Amino acid sequence: MHRTKVKVVEDALDANNTIARANRDDFDRAEVTVVNLMSAPGAGKTSLLERVVGGLDGVRVGVLEGDVQGSLDADRLASLHVPVTQLNTDAGFGGECHLDANMVRSAVPDLPLRDLDLLVIENVGNLVCPAEFKVGEDARVMVSSVTEGEDKPLKYPLMFRACELVLVNKIDLLPHLEFDLDKFLGNLDAVHPGVARMPVSARTGEGVAEWRDWLRRLASRAGAPA
Amino acid sequence: MHRTKVKVVEDALDANNTIARANRDDFDRAEVTVVNLMSAPGAGKTSLLERVVGGLDGVRVGVLEGDVQGSLDADRLASLHVPVTQLNTDAGFGGECHLDANMVRSAVPDLPLRDLDLLVIENVGNLVCPAEFKVGEDARVMVSSVTEGEDKPLKYPLMFRACELVLVNKIDLLPHLEFDLDKFLGNLDAVHPGVARMPVSARTGEGVAEWRDWLRRLASRAGAPA
Repeated sequence: MHRTKVKVVEDALDANNTIARANRDDFDRAEVTVVNLMSAPGAGKTSLLERVVGGLDGVRVGVLEGDVQGSLDADRLASLHVPVTQLNTDAGFGGECHLDANMVRSAVPDLPLRDLDLLVIENVGNLVCPAEFKVGEDARVMVSSVTEGEDKPLKYPLMFRACELVLVNKIDLLPHLEFDLDKFLGNLDAVHPGVARMPVSARTGEGVAEWRDWLRRLASRAGAPA
Repeated sequence: MHRTKVKVVEDALDANNTIARANRDDFDRAEVTVVNLMSAPGAGKTSLLERVVGGLDGVRVGVLEGDVQGSLDADRLASLHVPVTQLNTDAGFGGECHLDANMVRSAVPDLPLRDLDLLVIENVGNLVCPAEFKVGEDARVMVSSVTEGEDKPLKYPLMFRACELVLVNKIDLLPHLEFDLDKFLGNLDAVHPGVARMPVSARTGEGVAEWRDWLRRLASRAGAPA
Protein backbone atom coordinates (compact mmCIF):
# COMPACT_ATOMS: atom_id res chain seq x y z
CA MET A 1 0.00 0.00 0.00
CA HIS A 2 2.66 2.44 1.06
CA ARG A 3 4.72 1.69 -2.05
CA THR A 4 1.73 2.35 -4.31
CA LYS A 5 1.07 5.69 -2.68
CA VAL A 6 4.62 6.84 -3.17
CA LYS A 7 4.39 5.87 -6.82
CA VAL A 8 1.25 7.95 -7.30
CA VAL A 9 2.81 10.99 -5.67
CA GLU A 10 5.92 10.69 -7.83
CA ASP A 11 3.84 10.65 -10.98
CA ALA A 12 1.80 13.60 -9.86
CA LEU A 13 4.89 15.61 -9.10
CA ASP A 14 6.25 15.29 -12.60
CA ALA A 15 4.53 18.41 -13.86
CA ASN A 16 6.07 18.14 -17.31
CA ASN A 17 4.59 14.71 -17.99
CA THR A 18 1.23 15.79 -16.58
CA ILE A 19 1.11 18.70 -18.99
CA ALA A 20 2.46 16.60 -21.86
CA ARG A 21 -0.52 14.28 -21.32
CA ALA A 22 -2.90 17.25 -21.53
CA ASN A 23 -1.27 18.26 -24.82
CA ARG A 24 -1.55 14.66 -26.01
CA ASP A 25 -5.27 14.64 -25.22
CA ASP A 26 -5.79 17.80 -27.26
CA PHE A 27 -3.81 16.40 -30.18
CA ASP A 28 -5.79 13.12 -30.01
CA ARG A 29 -9.14 14.90 -29.95
CA ALA A 30 -8.11 16.80 -33.09
CA GLU A 31 -6.62 13.60 -34.62
CA VAL A 32 -3.29 15.26 -35.20
CA THR A 33 -0.02 13.32 -35.33
CA VAL A 34 2.81 15.20 -33.64
CA VAL A 35 6.54 14.98 -34.28
CA ASN A 36 9.15 16.56 -32.00
CA LEU A 37 12.11 17.45 -34.24
CA MET A 38 15.43 17.96 -32.48
CA SER A 39 19.10 18.56 -33.33
CA ALA A 40 22.19 20.62 -32.60
CA PRO A 41 22.17 24.21 -33.94
CA GLY A 42 22.64 24.29 -37.69
CA ALA A 43 22.13 20.56 -38.33
CA GLY A 44 19.37 21.29 -40.83
CA LYS A 45 15.99 20.84 -39.11
CA THR A 46 14.38 23.73 -40.97
CA SER A 47 15.96 22.83 -44.32
CA LEU A 48 14.72 19.24 -44.00
CA LEU A 49 11.24 20.53 -43.18
CA GLU A 50 11.30 22.89 -46.16
CA ARG A 51 12.08 19.86 -48.31
CA VAL A 52 9.06 17.80 -47.19
CA VAL A 53 6.17 20.08 -46.27
CA GLY A 54 5.35 20.87 -49.87
CA GLY A 55 5.21 17.26 -51.06
CA LEU A 56 3.05 15.65 -48.38
CA ASP A 57 -0.03 15.49 -50.62
CA GLY A 58 -3.14 14.70 -48.65
CA VAL A 59 -1.41 15.29 -45.30
CA ARG A 60 -2.19 18.74 -43.92
CA VAL A 61 0.98 19.78 -42.12
CA GLY A 62 1.66 22.62 -39.70
CA VAL A 63 4.75 23.68 -37.79
CA LEU A 64 5.31 24.92 -34.25
CA GLU A 65 8.65 26.66 -34.41
CA GLY A 66 10.68 26.80 -31.21
CA ASP A 67 13.53 29.31 -30.87
CA VAL A 68 15.15 31.24 -28.06
CA GLN A 69 14.25 34.40 -29.96
CA GLY A 70 13.39 35.67 -33.42
CA SER A 71 11.34 34.06 -36.17
CA LEU A 72 13.86 33.41 -38.96
CA ASP A 73 12.91 29.74 -39.40
CA ALA A 74 9.18 30.40 -39.04
CA ASP A 75 9.42 33.01 -41.80
CA ARG A 76 11.20 30.52 -44.07
CA LEU A 77 8.51 27.89 -43.52
CA ALA A 78 5.58 30.30 -43.75
CA SER A 79 6.76 31.24 -47.24
CA LEU A 80 5.90 27.65 -48.23
CA HIS A 81 2.25 28.35 -47.35
CA VAL A 82 1.96 26.04 -44.36
CA PRO A 83 0.59 27.28 -41.05
CA VAL A 84 3.48 28.16 -38.76
CA THR A 85 3.25 29.24 -35.14
CA GLN A 86 6.28 30.80 -33.43
CA LEU A 87 7.14 29.92 -29.84
CA ASN A 88 10.02 31.89 -28.32
CA THR A 89 11.53 30.67 -25.08
CA ASP A 90 12.75 34.12 -24.10
CA ALA A 91 9.19 35.46 -24.10
CA GLY A 92 8.13 34.52 -20.57
CA PHE A 93 10.19 31.33 -20.31
CA GLY A 94 13.59 32.72 -19.29
CA GLY A 95 15.33 32.05 -22.60
CA GLU A 96 15.27 28.29 -22.03
CA CYS A 97 17.45 26.07 -24.23
CA HIS A 98 14.62 23.63 -25.01
CA LEU A 99 10.87 23.34 -25.30
CA ASP A 100 8.95 21.68 -22.50
CA ALA A 101 5.34 20.56 -22.26
CA ASN A 102 4.19 23.78 -20.60
CA MET A 103 5.67 26.00 -23.31
CA VAL A 104 3.96 23.88 -25.97
CA ARG A 105 0.74 24.06 -23.90
CA SER A 106 0.92 27.85 -24.03
CA ALA A 107 0.95 27.66 -27.83
CA VAL A 108 -1.89 25.13 -28.22
CA PRO A 109 -4.66 27.78 -28.40
CA ASP A 110 -2.81 29.35 -31.36
CA LEU A 111 -2.47 26.08 -33.28
CA PRO A 112 -5.04 25.35 -36.02
CA LEU A 113 -5.29 21.72 -34.84
CA ARG A 114 -8.63 21.03 -36.55
CA ASP A 115 -7.07 21.89 -39.90
CA LEU A 116 -4.01 19.65 -39.47
CA ASP A 117 -3.12 15.98 -39.84
CA LEU A 118 0.52 16.41 -38.87
CA LEU A 119 2.15 18.94 -36.55
CA VAL A 120 5.92 19.17 -36.50
CA ILE A 121 7.36 20.86 -33.42
CA GLU A 122 10.82 22.17 -34.28
CA ASN A 123 12.67 22.27 -30.99
CA VAL A 124 15.46 24.67 -29.97
CA GLY A 125 18.83 23.64 -31.43
CA ASN A 126 20.46 21.71 -28.58
CA LEU A 127 21.62 18.10 -28.10
CA VAL A 128 21.10 17.99 -24.33
CA CYS A 129 17.94 19.32 -22.69
CA PRO A 130 15.27 18.90 -25.41
CA ALA A 131 15.61 15.11 -24.97
CA GLU A 132 14.58 15.44 -21.30
CA PHE A 133 11.15 16.94 -21.91
CA LYS A 134 8.28 15.15 -23.62
CA VAL A 135 5.77 17.60 -24.99
CA GLY A 136 2.92 15.25 -25.97
CA GLU A 137 4.40 14.04 -29.27
CA ASP A 138 3.79 10.75 -31.12
CA ALA A 139 7.40 10.46 -32.20
CA ARG A 140 10.75 12.12 -31.79
CA VAL A 141 13.03 12.63 -34.74
CA MET A 142 16.56 13.94 -34.46
CA VAL A 143 18.91 15.28 -37.09
CA SER A 144 22.65 14.67 -36.79
CA SER A 145 24.73 16.22 -39.55
CA VAL A 146 27.89 14.51 -40.74
CA THR A 147 29.88 17.73 -40.21
CA GLU A 148 29.39 17.30 -36.44
CA GLY A 149 31.59 14.20 -36.25
CA GLU A 150 31.17 10.49 -35.59
CA ASP A 151 31.36 10.77 -31.81
CA LYS A 152 28.09 12.59 -31.17
CA PRO A 153 25.98 9.54 -30.15
CA LEU A 154 28.60 8.71 -27.49
CA LYS A 155 28.74 12.29 -26.20
CA TYR A 156 25.00 12.98 -26.20
CA PRO A 157 23.52 9.49 -25.65
CA LEU A 158 20.25 10.64 -24.08
CA MET A 159 19.28 12.51 -27.24
CA PHE A 160 20.12 9.61 -29.53
CA ARG A 161 18.25 7.20 -27.25
CA ALA A 162 15.17 9.40 -26.99
CA CYS A 163 14.30 9.36 -30.68
CA GLU A 164 12.52 6.96 -33.02
CA LEU A 165 14.34 8.14 -36.14
CA VAL A 166 17.78 9.62 -36.79
CA LEU A 167 18.20 11.68 -39.96
CA VAL A 168 21.89 11.74 -40.89
CA ASN A 169 22.02 15.02 -42.80
CA LYS A 170 24.50 16.78 -45.13
CA ILE A 171 25.68 13.55 -46.75
CA ASP A 172 26.45 15.59 -49.89
CA LEU A 173 29.52 16.80 -47.95
CA LEU A 174 30.87 13.29 -47.26
CA PRO A 175 33.45 13.44 -50.10
CA HIS A 176 34.95 16.53 -48.43
CA LEU A 177 35.10 15.19 -44.86
CA GLU A 178 36.98 12.50 -42.96
CA PHE A 179 33.62 11.40 -41.50
CA ASP A 180 33.29 7.59 -41.39
CA LEU A 181 29.57 6.81 -41.76
CA ASP A 182 29.98 3.21 -40.59
CA LYS A 183 31.76 4.37 -37.46
CA PHE A 184 28.96 6.87 -36.75
CA LEU A 185 26.32 4.16 -37.23
CA GLY A 186 28.30 1.85 -34.94
CA ASN A 187 28.31 4.56 -32.26
CA LEU A 188 24.58 5.07 -32.83
CA ASP A 189 23.89 1.35 -32.37
CA ALA A 190 26.03 1.36 -29.23
CA VAL A 191 23.64 3.80 -27.55
CA HIS A 192 20.36 2.98 -29.35
CA PRO A 193 20.64 -0.43 -31.02
CA GLY A 194 18.69 -0.74 -34.26
CA VAL A 195 17.05 2.69 -34.16
CA ALA A 196 15.70 3.74 -37.57
CA ARG A 197 18.16 5.92 -39.47
CA MET A 198 18.14 7.64 -42.87
CA PRO A 199 21.05 9.29 -44.65
CA VAL A 200 19.71 12.49 -46.21
CA SER A 201 20.81 15.72 -47.84
CA ALA A 202 18.55 18.74 -47.51
CA ARG A 203 20.74 20.36 -50.14
CA THR A 204 20.59 17.77 -52.94
CA GLY A 205 17.33 16.12 -51.89
CA GLU A 206 18.90 12.69 -51.48
CA GLY A 207 16.91 10.59 -49.03
CA VAL A 208 14.19 13.23 -48.73
CA ALA A 209 11.56 10.96 -50.34
CA GLU A 210 12.18 8.34 -47.64
CA TRP A 211 11.88 10.96 -44.89
CA ARG A 212 8.62 12.20 -46.42
CA ASP A 213 7.29 8.62 -46.64
CA TRP A 214 8.20 8.03 -43.00
CA LEU A 215 6.18 11.09 -41.98
CA ARG A 216 3.26 10.01 -44.15
CA ARG A 217 3.24 6.50 -42.63
CA LEU A 218 3.41 7.96 -39.12
CA ALA A 219 0.51 10.31 -39.84
CA SER A 220 -1.69 7.55 -41.28
CA ARG A 221 -0.86 5.09 -38.50
CA ALA A 222 -1.74 7.55 -35.79
CA GLY A 223 -4.91 8.54 -37.60
CA ALA A 224 -6.13 4.93 -37.84
CA PRO A 225 -8.76 3.74 -35.34
CA ALA A 226 -7.14 2.05 -32.33
CA MET B 1 20.59 53.68 1.94
CA HIS B 2 17.72 51.35 1.16
CA ARG B 3 18.70 51.22 -2.51
CA THR B 4 22.30 50.33 -1.63
CA LYS B 5 21.15 47.53 0.65
CA VAL B 6 19.00 45.99 -2.06
CA LYS B 7 21.94 46.12 -4.44
CA VAL B 8 24.17 44.28 -1.98
CA VAL B 9 21.58 41.59 -1.41
CA GLU B 10 21.11 41.11 -5.15
CA ASP B 11 24.81 40.60 -5.64
CA ALA B 12 25.00 38.19 -2.75
CA LEU B 13 22.13 36.16 -4.13
CA ASP B 14 23.84 35.53 -7.44
CA ALA B 15 25.60 32.42 -6.24
CA ASN B 16 27.16 31.73 -9.62
CA ASN B 17 29.00 35.05 -9.74
CA THR B 18 30.07 34.67 -6.12
CA ILE B 19 31.63 31.31 -6.87
CA ALA B 20 33.09 32.56 -10.16
CA ARG B 21 34.89 35.24 -8.15
CA ALA B 22 36.32 32.58 -5.83
CA ASN B 23 37.58 30.66 -8.89
CA ARG B 24 39.01 33.90 -10.25
CA ASP B 25 40.90 34.51 -7.00
CA ASP B 26 42.42 31.03 -7.17
CA PHE B 27 43.42 31.53 -10.79
CA ASP B 28 44.94 34.92 -9.97
CA ARG B 29 46.92 33.55 -7.05
CA ALA B 30 48.38 30.91 -9.36
CA GLU B 31 48.86 33.50 -12.15
CA VAL B 32 46.91 31.41 -14.63
CA THR B 33 45.05 32.91 -17.56
CA VAL B 34 41.73 31.17 -18.17
CA VAL B 35 39.75 30.85 -21.40
CA ASN B 36 36.18 29.58 -21.52
CA LEU B 37 35.78 27.89 -24.93
CA MET B 38 32.22 27.45 -26.17
CA SER B 39 30.37 26.29 -29.29
CA ALA B 40 27.56 24.13 -30.65
CA PRO B 41 28.19 20.36 -30.64
CA GLY B 42 30.66 19.38 -33.34
CA ALA B 43 31.85 22.89 -34.22
CA GLY B 44 35.46 21.89 -33.59
CA LYS B 45 36.47 23.08 -30.10
CA THR B 46 38.62 20.03 -29.40
CA SER B 47 40.16 19.97 -32.89
CA LEU B 48 41.09 23.64 -32.60
CA LEU B 49 42.67 22.95 -29.21
CA GLU B 50 44.60 19.98 -30.60
CA ARG B 51 46.00 22.34 -33.21
CA VAL B 52 47.37 24.90 -30.74
CA VAL B 53 48.36 23.21 -27.49
CA GLY B 54 51.50 21.71 -28.99
CA GLY B 55 52.86 24.95 -30.43
CA LEU B 56 52.45 27.35 -27.53
CA ASP B 57 56.17 27.30 -26.70
CA GLY B 58 56.85 28.84 -23.32
CA VAL B 59 53.18 28.86 -22.36
CA ARG B 60 52.30 25.92 -20.13
CA VAL B 61 48.75 25.00 -21.10
CA GLY B 62 46.21 22.73 -19.43
CA VAL B 63 42.63 21.83 -20.27
CA LEU B 64 39.51 21.37 -18.18
CA GLU B 65 37.24 19.29 -20.36
CA GLY B 66 33.49 19.68 -19.82
CA ASP B 67 31.10 17.04 -21.13
CA VAL B 68 27.75 15.64 -20.13
CA GLN B 69 29.42 12.25 -19.93
CA GLY B 70 32.41 10.31 -21.18
CA SER B 71 35.98 11.46 -21.76
CA LEU B 72 36.45 11.17 -25.54
CA ASP B 73 37.79 14.72 -25.95
CA ALA B 74 39.93 14.56 -22.82
CA ASP B 75 41.55 11.38 -24.12
CA ARG B 76 42.30 13.09 -27.45
CA LEU B 77 43.95 16.04 -25.71
CA ALA B 78 45.82 13.95 -23.12
CA SER B 79 47.53 12.12 -25.98
CA LEU B 80 49.19 15.47 -26.78
CA HIS B 81 50.88 15.36 -23.36
CA VAL B 82 49.12 18.33 -21.81
CA PRO B 83 47.43 18.02 -18.41
CA VAL B 84 43.72 17.40 -18.93
CA THR B 85 41.08 17.20 -16.22
CA GLN B 86 37.65 15.76 -17.04
CA LEU B 87 34.51 17.36 -15.61
CA ASN B 88 31.27 15.49 -16.34
CA THR B 89 27.98 17.27 -15.69
CA ASP B 90 26.09 14.00 -15.18
CA ALA B 91 28.31 13.09 -12.23
CA GLY B 92 26.50 14.93 -9.45
CA PHE B 93 25.28 17.86 -11.55
CA GLY B 94 22.13 16.39 -13.10
CA GLY B 95 23.49 16.10 -16.64
CA GLU B 96 23.52 19.87 -17.08
CA CYS B 97 23.92 21.28 -20.61
CA HIS B 98 26.63 23.77 -19.55
CA LEU B 99 29.37 24.37 -17.02
CA ASP B 100 28.73 26.82 -14.21
CA ALA B 101 31.07 28.34 -11.64
CA ASN B 102 30.26 25.73 -9.01
CA MET B 103 31.06 22.80 -11.30
CA VAL B 104 34.37 24.41 -12.20
CA ARG B 105 34.96 25.05 -8.48
CA SER B 106 34.54 21.33 -7.80
CA ALA B 107 37.37 20.64 -10.27
CA VAL B 108 39.79 23.31 -8.99
CA PRO B 109 41.48 20.99 -6.44
CA ASP B 110 42.28 18.60 -9.32
CA LEU B 111 43.83 21.29 -11.53
CA PRO B 112 47.63 21.64 -11.51
CA LEU B 113 47.29 25.45 -11.42
CA ARG B 114 50.84 26.10 -10.16
CA ASP B 115 52.20 24.31 -13.25
CA LEU B 116 50.10 26.25 -15.76
CA ASP B 117 50.16 29.62 -17.50
CA LEU B 118 46.99 29.04 -19.48
CA LEU B 119 43.93 26.96 -18.65
CA VAL B 120 41.38 26.35 -21.37
CA ILE B 121 37.97 25.28 -20.11
CA GLU B 122 36.18 23.45 -22.92
CA ASN B 123 32.50 23.91 -22.19
CA VAL B 124 29.64 21.53 -23.06
CA GLY B 125 28.62 21.83 -26.73
CA ASN B 126 25.62 24.18 -26.58
CA LEU B 127 24.86 27.66 -27.97
CA VAL B 128 22.43 28.69 -25.24
CA CYS B 129 23.17 28.13 -21.54
CA PRO B 130 27.00 28.19 -21.37
CA ALA B 131 26.83 31.91 -22.21
CA GLU B 132 24.76 32.55 -19.08
CA PHE B 133 27.34 31.32 -16.57
CA LYS B 134 30.68 32.96 -15.93
CA VAL B 135 33.11 30.54 -14.36
CA GLY B 136 35.97 32.90 -13.42
CA GLU B 137 37.55 33.14 -16.87
CA ASP B 138 39.68 35.96 -18.33
CA ALA B 139 38.12 35.62 -21.77
CA ARG B 140 35.42 33.75 -23.61
CA VAL B 141 36.05 32.34 -27.04
CA MET B 142 33.38 30.77 -29.17
CA VAL B 143 33.61 28.61 -32.26
CA SER B 144 30.99 28.89 -34.99
CA SER B 145 31.49 26.54 -37.92
CA VAL B 146 30.46 27.59 -41.41
CA THR B 147 28.41 24.39 -41.81
CA GLU B 148 25.99 25.72 -39.17
CA GLY B 149 24.72 28.53 -41.38
CA GLU B 150 24.90 32.33 -41.52
CA ASP B 151 21.94 32.90 -39.22
CA LYS B 152 23.44 31.63 -35.97
CA PRO B 153 24.40 35.04 -34.47
CA LEU B 154 20.79 36.17 -34.91
CA LYS B 155 19.35 32.99 -33.39
CA TYR B 156 21.77 32.72 -30.44
CA PRO B 157 22.71 36.36 -29.81
CA LEU B 158 23.58 35.96 -26.12
CA MET B 159 26.37 33.52 -26.97
CA PHE B 160 27.81 35.72 -29.72
CA ARG B 161 27.59 38.77 -27.43
CA ALA B 162 29.22 37.02 -24.48
CA CYS B 163 32.54 36.29 -26.17
CA GLU B 164 35.70 38.28 -26.87
CA LEU B 165 36.69 36.22 -29.92
CA VAL B 166 34.73 34.28 -32.55
CA LEU B 167 36.59 31.52 -34.38
CA VAL B 168 34.83 30.87 -37.70
CA ASN B 169 35.81 27.24 -38.24
CA LYS B 170 35.73 24.73 -41.14
CA ILE B 171 36.48 27.37 -43.77
CA ASP B 172 38.08 24.59 -45.86
CA LEU B 173 34.49 23.55 -46.64
CA LEU B 174 33.45 26.96 -48.00
CA PRO B 175 33.82 25.89 -51.67
CA HIS B 176 31.27 23.14 -51.03
CA LEU B 177 28.68 25.23 -49.19
CA GLU B 178 26.30 28.06 -50.00
CA PHE B 179 27.56 29.82 -46.84
CA ASP B 180 28.10 33.57 -47.42
CA LEU B 181 30.91 34.63 -45.06
CA ASP B 182 30.14 38.35 -45.46
CA LYS B 183 26.54 37.75 -44.54
CA PHE B 184 27.60 35.79 -41.44
CA LEU B 185 29.98 38.58 -40.40
CA GLY B 186 27.22 41.12 -40.96
CA ASN B 187 24.94 39.12 -38.66
CA LEU B 188 27.77 38.89 -36.14
CA ASP B 189 28.28 42.67 -36.19
CA ALA B 190 24.53 43.15 -35.79
CA VAL B 191 24.61 41.43 -32.40
CA HIS B 192 28.21 42.15 -31.30
CA PRO B 193 29.63 45.06 -33.33
CA GLY B 194 33.33 44.79 -34.00
CA VAL B 195 34.00 41.68 -31.94
CA ALA B 196 37.32 40.03 -32.86
CA ARG B 197 36.87 37.21 -35.37
CA MET B 198 39.21 34.77 -37.09
CA PRO B 199 38.42 32.45 -39.99
CA VAL B 200 40.14 29.14 -39.26
CA SER B 201 40.28 25.53 -40.35
CA ALA B 202 41.22 22.93 -37.76
CA ARG B 203 41.55 20.51 -40.67
CA THR B 204 44.00 22.40 -42.92
CA GLY B 205 45.55 24.57 -40.22
CA GLU B 206 44.56 27.82 -41.93
CA GLY B 207 44.28 30.63 -39.39
CA VAL B 208 45.59 28.44 -36.56
CA ALA B 209 48.77 30.55 -36.16
CA GLU B 210 46.62 33.63 -35.52
CA TRP B 211 44.51 31.75 -32.98
CA ARG B 212 47.67 30.55 -31.22
CA ASP B 213 49.08 34.11 -31.19
CA TRP B 214 45.85 35.41 -29.73
CA LEU B 215 46.11 32.88 -26.86
CA ARG B 216 49.76 33.76 -26.33
CA ARG B 217 49.00 37.49 -26.15
CA LEU B 218 46.15 36.87 -23.73
CA ALA B 219 48.35 34.73 -21.48
CA SER B 220 51.16 37.31 -21.40
CA ARG B 221 48.79 40.24 -20.84
CA ALA B 222 47.11 38.57 -17.89
CA GLY B 223 50.46 37.54 -16.45
CA ALA B 224 51.78 41.11 -16.50
CA PRO B 225 51.77 43.08 -13.25
CA ALA B 226 48.63 45.21 -12.95
